[in-house]
Amino acid sequence: MDFETVVKNRKSIRKFQSKLIEPEKIDKILELVNLAPSAGNLQSYKIFVVEDKQKIGSIKANVGGIQKNFSDLSPLIMIFCANKEESAARYKTRGIRLYAIQDATIACSYAQLIATSLGLGSCWVGSFKEKAIMKILQTDLLPAAILVLGYPDEAPPRRPRKLVEQLAEMT
Amino acid sequence: MDFETVVKNRKSIRKFQSKLIEPEKIDKILELVNLAPSAGNLQSYKIFVVEDKQKIGSIKANVGGIQKNFSDLSPLIMIFCANKEESAARYKTRGIRLYAIQDATIACSYAQLIATSLGLGSCWVGSFKEKAIMKILQTDLLPAAILVLGYPDEAPPRRPRKLVEQLAEMT
Repeated sequence: MDFETVVKNRKSIRKFQSKLIEPEKIDKILELVNLAPSAGNLQSYKIFVVEDKQKIGSIKANVGGIQKNFSDLSPLIMIFCANKEESAARYKTRGIRLYAIQDATIACSYAQLIATSLGLGSCWVGSFKEKAIMKILQTDLLPAAILVLGYPDEAPPRRPRKLVEQLAEMT
Repeated sequence: MDFETVVKNRKSIRKFQSKLIEPEKIDKILELVNLAPSAGNLQSYKIFVVEDKQKIGSIKANVGGIQKNFSDLSPLIMIFCANKEESAARYKTRGIRLYAIQDATIACSYAQLIATSLGLGSCWVGSFKEKAIMKILQTDLLPAAILVLGYPDEAPPRRPRKLVEQLAEMT
């Protein structure tokens, strides 16, 4: 798919078909996410790929606010966790405070665009109970972003944006 | 350009031709970055676009570590600043601690891919003196990422990555 079309097609999708995501597409997402940049090329993050329906339910139960509004059907969830320890080993507090979070965030940005290019829909979830998610995943790594993925079962309108003049300042 | 090719073509470029970036390309980057997702669609970030050679020099003087290794020629710098106050107004401490930084980081991820799709090279700079950069930009917003942009004057090899098995865990 053309690059610009992918960026324009990416919208938050919250209703999914029951159709599962093909393993080749999951592999393609991970293969291309692996090319994303990271601080010092350390890749201080880890992706947990959840397909188990019960586990998906447990994760959704720990998502907050309006982001609870998912249809029950969502075949796949990816959780992008910051590996603060890995980044701190080289970058000390800046690794903890910034880089590990950024590495996980960049990876989620890439995954969402790659998923769009493969005809998948997704929604970035930022509001969740970190400790509960860590317990479900049995990890010490800090969840920084959750991506809910599947074949779209809705076509929502594009949400409004700031004017470019508000977003950017030439200086 | 095909989406997958863009992701595969994106590499850190540190040497640039003197050729300036066409205004239409700068506009296109900003237009498409504006479509990036953000927490609650608040877009709690601002992009400072710097073309002034003296200002670019001042910014580079406040970049740390190995990231100093830029050729003097780099026609454009974009600085992605987190607007913590804007995010905090709705999301309190999570807005300050996470969302505003993520919004700026997602935007920089998009900008780098969009630039690649337009035939430009770029390098993400994460190591810099925040306060000095804020003073140069005359802003209270926190710089979260710097993107150095221009037409590439080098074709470095791809750097190694983790194995996908190290990066992701199926659970």
